[in-house]
Amino acid sequence: MTALDDRSVRPTVTTGPISGSSKEYKEIHGVRVPFRRVHLTNGEHVDLYDTSGPYTDDTAHIDVHSGLSPLRADWIAEREPVNGAVTQLAYAKAGIVTKEMAFVAARENMDPEFVRDEVARGRAVIPVNRRHPECEPAIIGKNFLVKINANIGNSAVSSSIEDEVEKMVWATRWGADTVMDLSTGKRIDETREWIMRNSPVPIGTVPIYQALEKVNGDPAALSWEVYRDTVIEQCEQGVDYMTVHAGVLLRYVPLTAKRVTGIVSRGGSIMAAWCLAHHRESFLYTHFEELCDILRAYDVTFSLGDGLRPGSIADANDAAQFAELRTICELTHVARERDVQVMIEGPGHVPMHKIAENVRMEEELSGEAPFYTLGPLATDIAPAYDHITSAIGAAQIGWLGTAMLCYVTPKEHLGLPNRDDVKTGVITYKIAAHSADLAKGHPGAQDWDDALSKARFEFRWEDQFNLSLDPDTARGFHDETLPAEPAKTAHFCSMCGPKFCSMKITQDVREYAEKHGLSTVDAIEAGMAEKSDEFHDKGDKVYLPVVGD
Amino acid sequence: MTALDDRSVRPTVTTGPISGSSKEYKEIHGVRVPFRRVHLTNGEHVDLYDTSGPYTDDTAHIDVHSGLSPLRADWIAEREPVNGAVTQLAYAKAGIVTKEMAFVAARENMDPEFVRDEVARGRAVIPVNRRHPECEPAIIGKNFLVKINANIGNSAVSSSIEDEVEKMVWATRWGADTVMDLSTGKRIDETREWIMRNSPVPIGTVPIYQALEKVNGDPAALSWEVYRDTVIEQCEQGVDYMTVHAGVLLRYVPLTAKRVTGIVSRGGSIMAAWCLAHHRESFLYTHFEELCDILRAYDVTFSLGDGLRPGSIADANDAAQFAELRTICELTHVARERDVQVMIEGPGHVPMHKIAENVRMEEELSGEAPFYTLGPLATDIAPAYDHITSAIGAAQIGWLGTAMLCYVTPKEHLGLPNRDDVKTGVITYKIAAHSADLAKGHPGAQDWDDALSKARFEFRWEDQFNLSLDPDTARGFHDETLPAEPAKTAHFCSMCGPKFCSMKITQDVREYAEKHGLSTVDAIEAGMAEKSDEFHDKGDKVYLPVVGD
Repeated sequence: MTALDDRSVRPTVTTGPISGSSKEYKEIHGVRVPFRRVHLTNGEHVDLYDTSGPYTDDTAHIDVHSGLSPLRADWIAEREPVNGAVTQLAYAKAGIVTKEMAFVAARENMDPEFVRDEVARGRAVIPVNRRHPECEPAIIGKNFLVKINANIGNSAVSSSIEDEVEKMVWATRWGADTVMDLSTGKRIDETREWIMRNSPVPIGTVPIYQALEKVNGDPAALSWEVYRDTVIEQCEQGVDYMTVHAGVLLRYVPLTAKRVTGIVSRGGSIMAAWCLAHHRESFLYTHFEELCDILRAYDVTFSLGDGLRPGSIADANDAAQFAELRTICELTHVARERDVQVMIEGPGHVPMHKIAENVRMEEELSGEAPFYTLGPLATDIAPAYDHITSAIGAAQIGWLGTAMLCYVTPKEHLGLPNRDDVKTGVITYKIAAHSADLAKGHPGAQDWDDALSKARFEFRWEDQFNLSLDPDTARGFHDETLPAEPAKTAHFCSMCGPKFCSMKITQDVREYAEKHGLSTVDAIEAGMAEKSDEFHDKGDKVYLPVVGD
Repeated sequence: MTALDDRSVRPTVTTGPISGSSKEYKEIHGVRVPFRRVHLTNGEHVDLYDTSGPYTDDTAHIDVHSGLSPLRADWIAEREPVNGAVTQLAYAKAGIVTKEMAFVAARENMDPEFVRDEVARGRAVIPVNRRHPECEPAIIGKNFLVKINANIGNSAVSSSIEDEVEKMVWATRWGADTVMDLSTGKRIDETREWIMRNSPVPIGTVPIYQALEKVNGDPAALSWEVYRDTVIEQCEQGVDYMTVHAGVLLRYVPLTAKRVTGIVSRGGSIMAAWCLAHHRESFLYTHFEELCDILRAYDVTFSLGDGLRPGSIADANDAAQFAELRTICELTHVARERDVQVMIEGPGHVPMHKIAENVRMEEELSGEAPFYTLGPLATDIAPAYDHITSAIGAAQIGWLGTAMLCYVTPKEHLGLPNRDDVKTGVITYKIAAHSADLAKGHPGAQDWDDALSKARFEFRWEDQFNLSLDPDTARGFHDETLPAEPAKTAHFCSMCGPKFCSMKITQDVREYAEKHGLSTVDAIEAGMAEKSDEFHDKGDKVYLPVVGD
């Protein structure tokens, strides 16, 4: 029997559409692609990228004991390996546009051939294990929408299978593009099986955590064999990408000794401990090619982990961090040559003025492998608000080219995130990712902002709520001050009250402009476009003649 | 009788030290300056900039009906006007270092002569009305710590005097450097009197709001005389800085007609409505010199308002916004020549890639007048999270040189902030401001981060909580997962559990480095410092010989 047959496990997951939206499927490039359609009160609608899977489709039948239907089963069955490989990278190099590439092209409103080319260059990855057919493919690369990952998973002191399955469904409902299961507690295999079979998004893991459990938590007792077997088991389960801390070399470990916060990555410290105990080079590094062969057989994507990432502002961009990054970038080329997809993980804790250097070095040395960063936190002084300290860094590093942002919840450094923390982390990171999409000028990104702002300006309150990342909270905040139903259509809000409203006055401006101003508008706008410094030049003559009568 | 004698008004304000801290006064540059001293469990302490006034001093007697003691009364009484002016700018130009300059120099750990020079150049302002002697002086300028402002104030539909007084005390408790009273509802004068007499920080207002109330909310009924009298009344009460939308010129109004969100500034739309109704130039612009004379007599600082700021991503950096900015910058020179301190207000809603242009233009055209921005929000899609969308923009614009950041609360666009929203907004903006201080390399800014990170790494949980911006919430989050008192001293946390802890392993690394590694450390660090590309160069030779036996 499989883990899902265990009736003593009874996950309750959140289903049903997001307020004001419905699931819309479109046939594009020969594949059926889901979108979140927001229905507006003026009869228009807005279609948004949708990570939530069948759970938000009120026509879908959800049974967590059966798992999701295998969307990709036929796609995988239909095709032959190329050059002995079944990876998206191998197909892309061979000039083949897979169904997965067509699917992500449709989601991103891009040309499938462009998608294939980005994957072939190794500048984008589509993490889809052939053993995870339930997954709706997503693409991670600097020339696509910035993606976000949500970490879940139990620990020795907390959580259950039910909690973790719902956290996965809940995180994707609010926009998580991938989910990492970082379980280190009990029943790791069963927990992961439940998550894999019910997840519409790619799932990532850090196999060294489970390997460590197998040797009762003693890093020195780890071996390549124990690790390899763990990786194969997780590949068989369908894990789509795996964090591998293969860049933590013995000679780099002493570089962390003088740090304020030493080694803060669990995987990094496990491997450092192993290297020190045996005074030998990391088995992840010495067996890297064998690891490539295993991942290639399933099309599992490498996420080369930054085990020596800084854990504080003081340690940002230091010798240990950059030494490891250089090694990771070498390994990226090794994996890519073997047709294995690769992304690279980044920090961590970095002040704003040191962020750009991370992206520049990663892109230059890895050949623009997708960068996947944790925040970074722009300051250390705000535990309980690290979703915010890190969103500041995440938005900037996303703008600079980071392809995926790993969320940080309010519980970072303090405890395990609960369901509410997961939502707060996801919404916060959707904000950072979308802000980056706007700054990168991603085609169509601003349409969402414009639709919401137009609704706001026209006092279409329900549309403003439903177009927002979190309609429930937006509506709730509005109703705290003005609960009355009429207020939802009222042409005023609680900030100014009914007697005076700046937006009302703006309506008058438009009527006025119709009468007097439009020629003036175009004239001055033209002048501005030339960046004419007319006002500046006559800096002394401040008082201009009064216009009109 | 004054408003404070009204016993029917019974404000209850929050008093007592912040967890783990006490009020410490230091005698520096001949003035007595308050700090927040955080006491650590290892016997050390950290002194932080303190905006909270006597309310966090457990030896202070607080009676809101008497107001705070007039700290600056003697300083003001002792000195004569220079060149007919009593402004900090006039004294600075005359080479005089005032007590206020000495006070802010002590708070910022700067040289008083440097402070005087920055004020004389108009690159920094110290907003302190001579009629607000209770105020602890603060300096606002790009070469000082980035400041934050918290908006409070009632509206026609909500709030009371008691609420607003507590909001002011509460906001300064958590770090608000200034507070703006934006009341537009009932009893505006009494509300402001209560706030002025009990505020330890500079208070700002937007006089046009009260002027509008005087003419029953009809913008067309406004006049220079009504406005002037309102300004004089507020000067007499002690308001430290005033937002004046003098740059909204008649000919700019049509520039907003094609916008997605038109005019979203209340002051801006009031003046636009007046200009349209009379088809005449703004009285704020045509009477600007008289306004300078009034503000100079009290040393009230101009905050030249951006009435045409963008209300959406779509309208950022457009013709209307920049036309007004150019005019505001001209007026800055006019006021400065008349010895009146000036800062300039900025947007609003701006995507990340359009932020720098705002600072560049403001600095170039105004001669680096302190820039005071509202956010900016980096995206429009997250109502209920606009403290976060705006903190992303605020941190960046602060790094680029903005001197003060006006907070945004979670209720922005939705309703009036309550006490919890005020705290969330203040903490979020302290994060943005401190992140900017780090990125600017402000001397000593990183000491705070380092102290907290060191405590975190050494498992001094109580120190980590007490050093944080919000100790209560940090402690509360920790206790949700590990309530037991021993956990506060335990050398593990709920993320990894007791069996395995990355930080524990790092201790071993240090011992190892002591034995083997320290020469290696210095060698490799030196190599890194030269940015040696050794690893990169031998990019092909991936597998290095195993180190050691």
